[in-house]
Amino acid sequence: MHKNIKEDTIAAVATPSGVGAISIIRVSGPETIGIVDKIFVGKINLSESASHTIHYGKIKDEVNNPVDDVLVSIFKAPNSYTGEDSVEISSHGSPFITKRIIEILVNNGIKIAEPGEFTKRAYLNNRLDLAQAEAVLDIINSRTEASLLGARNQLDGLLSSKVQDLRQKLMDSASFVELELDFAEEDIELVKYSELTNRIEDIIYEIDKLIKTYSFGKVIRDGVNVALVGKPNVGKSSLLNYILKESRAIVSPIPGTTRDVIREEVSIDGILFRLYDTAGIRLSDDEIEKEGVLRSRNVVKNADIVLLIEDIFQNGSDELFKEITSFAKPEKVLKVINKIDLEKNIIKTGDIYISALTGEGIESLFKKLKEASIGNSSYTEKSALVSNLRHYNCLRKAKENLKDSLKTISNKLSGEFIAVDIRNAVLSLGEIIGEVSSEDVLNNIFSKFCVGK
Amino acid sequence: MHKNIKEDTIAAVATPSGVGAISIIRVSGPETIGIVDKIFVGKINLSESASHTIHYGKIKDEVNNPVDDVLVSIFKAPNSYTGEDSVEISSHGSPFITKRIIEILVNNGIKIAEPGEFTKRAYLNNRLDLAQAEAVLDIINSRTEASLLGARNQLDGLLSSKVQDLRQKLMDSASFVELELDFAEEDIELVKYSELTNRIEDIIYEIDKLIKTYSFGKVIRDGVNVALVGKPNVGKSSLLNYILKESRAIVSPIPGTTRDVIREEVSIDGILFRLYDTAGIRLSDDEIEKEGVLRSRNVVKNADIVLLIEDIFQNGSDELFKEITSFAKPEKVLKVINKIDLEKNIIKTGDIYISALTGEGIESLFKKLKEASIGNSSYTEKSALVSNLRHYNCLRKAKENLKDSLKTISNKLSGEFIAVDIRNAVLSLGEIIGEVSSEDVLNNIFSKFCVGK
Repeated sequence: MHKNIKEDTIAAVATPSGVGAISIIRVSGPETIGIVDKIFVGKINLSESASHTIHYGKIKDEVNNPVDDVLVSIFKAPNSYTGEDSVEISSHGSPFITKRIIEILVNNGIKIAEPGEFTKRAYLNNRLDLAQAEAVLDIINSRTEASLLGARNQLDGLLSSKVQDLRQKLMDSASFVELELDFAEEDIELVKYSELTNRIEDIIYEIDKLIKTYSFGKVIRDGVNVALVGKPNVGKSSLLNYILKESRAIVSPIPGTTRDVIREEVSIDGILFRLYDTAGIRLSDDEIEKEGVLRSRNVVKNADIVLLIEDIFQNGSDELFKEITSFAKPEKVLKVINKIDLEKNIIKTGDIYISALTGEGIESLFKKLKEASIGNSSYTEKSALVSNLRHYNCLRKAKENLKDSLKTISNKLSGEFIAVDIRNAVLSLGEIIGEVSSEDVLNNIFSKFCVGK
Repeated sequence: MHKNIKEDTIAAVATPSGVGAISIIRVSGPETIGIVDKIFVGKINLSESASHTIHYGKIKDEVNNPVDDVLVSIFKAPNSYTGEDSVEISSHGSPFITKRIIEILVNNGIKIAEPGEFTKRAYLNNRLDLAQAEAVLDIINSRTEASLLGARNQLDGLLSSKVQDLRQKLMDSASFVELELDFAEEDIELVKYSELTNRIEDIIYEIDKLIKTYSFGKVIRDGVNVALVGKPNVGKSSLLNYILKESRAIVSPIPGTTRDVIREEVSIDGILFRLYDTAGIRLSDDEIEKEGVLRSRNVVKNADIVLLIEDIFQNGSDELFKEITSFAKPEKVLKVINKIDLEKNIIKTGDIYISALTGEGIESLFKKLKEASIGNSSYTEKSALVSNLRHYNCLRKAKENLKDSLKTISNKLSGEFIAVDIRNAVLSLGEIIGEVSSEDVLNNIFSKFCVGK
């Protein structure tokens, strides 16, 4: 299926939730202007207003009482984000007011938008391809220079045009097979086969180059999960607090204080690191601590890097290391020795030595974290990057399809079998940009969006 | 001092912080359009665009790289919120992107707006009076129907026009005193004095009516702080959870779990109740608990109502009651008996009986909470309401000024002394709407706003 335009008119709050100066309610669909006109009292009717103009007035409720002073912006199809008639209602930034306005819109026949429904409509109306639509979500979630650049490049079509280019070449090859080779029937032209093989191998090489950007692209886009584990009182919370220069976690000299997993984010050279403090990996007969231990284990399992923290007095954390590596890969564990400020003569081994009190060694801890996640790479240019697991899987599928086609060629099967393999690769690549897509795939993609986008 | 227009061009994020579909950056001041034009790449120059139009394009950074796709809305002076040239930049809803755009604007000579600076400028440019400007903040902070209606009425000028009306009457009276009575000099006309006395008493009566709305208006605007206290394990967190139908506080069968004060809000008949769970009012030799006990005491001190919770098994909470009332007024303590589901035969006294497990009695708890805060009143109409301490104090000052004038009359002092007293009352009332204001008063008011409003 593809591009079945929905006829509902939808609305949602488009600004972040919470209190602020301004909130925006977005409305889109064929009935937009008629419905908003019913609840808006301004100088002129919105239906008589030009696209891309702004109008001051009041939103009135079901019994004609004013709810709020608003500005209404009009976007007429097809010159809107969704490609449909759209309106943005700019109200005071109170969650209570936006909730009321949405209620009033619903009472006038508007449907509350599903997550990502505006962007889904932009895709269905050919305003964006699917990889570009996914880039919109990545842009919103970007937290660092590198992640924003990656998402911008994708929205600007760098990945899409690369994929389109490969697709086009494959379609040409498939046509070549279907027209020329089949025409020749039994009179197999070996030269043409070897030329075709070369072409396909070139495209496999290009696809492989894209596939190889994924491990890097994933870190750029999603950041790195870091679990801070260690025996009670070695200074996990203190380290976190030092890094964040603020006191989010309660720090106290009593072991077992940090009962909830605390998460903070820090950007190191454009890469996002999510730091998870834990309740301490240890058995405990205290019921609350037990709950915490379970959560800690989950954090460790989901971590890309585990910082095993001990202090200079606790030399024997081998047991803890054994415990952690019973459910996490040893190579992702970095050992960090804290409290070096308390001892002048330390014999340093290969581990990372820090003081969460003075900050000594924390820069080199950052360097190690970055190395452990992306080595010495950086991302500062306009280049296509695969950062999305779905795209990665489509590329791997396309590569498999093309490998199949090479086998079909070397097995000297008929041209039509070769063409089928190539066309499968075309389809696999087409899934990336949404040339082909199923309702399931679309739902899966757009359900990750926030409501209002 | 009054109405000294600032010449800076200012900018701030106007939407709530956090991730969403759209964020708005607001820019205002004489250089707005010139500066935004420098960093905006669209089809036409903003300087050539009409007011109240919307333009699609990209924001570029210091080295001309695109940062984000945006919509720019133009408002030309005086037809903007501030009365100055203004622009709203609508970007993707990422805090990282808005931070970057603000940085770029600052690098082009824009000043980051102080809290409330846009609304302050609206006031300085006579777009709003001071009570209306304060209503803008109340609207944003409104959480219930009643608080929104109160703030809307204030923004619509109900309080301002009432105050203006009283001010005008007093100015007329002052002129009357200055012109007529002084003219008569020693030949004191007693009839005119008694007429003047009547007039002033009428105005005092009107002012008193406004003053009396304050205790109600304060509850409407600010809501009610409710502290939940009780011995460990009587079900404070369970009650909170039942009310909120979600599990924000960790509930466990081990006494002393709730270490941090947890706050949630619930709207009962349009009134906002803020519920503060506490760590339990008790002495403790556990260091963390001690910190919690300190916080609890502060919560109790700041509470409008204290719910003293016990369960049906703990009959002797007299000691706790004594402890609480050692630092809180006894009349604000409501005793609540929890866990009535565990005992069939309960002899009920005047207290409130509930089950946080089954919800029995919680509706009547709500009724008691509402009664204890505003009795049987409600607020559903367009009427002037004093909800702001500053206005309340100005009204009381005006009343004192007028009482002084009555004394001056009865002491048969010269007309000019009477006029001075009346003019003082005019000034006191004028402070409410900002006819007179000091930089200190303005700073105090607008510093309570969020940045971007």
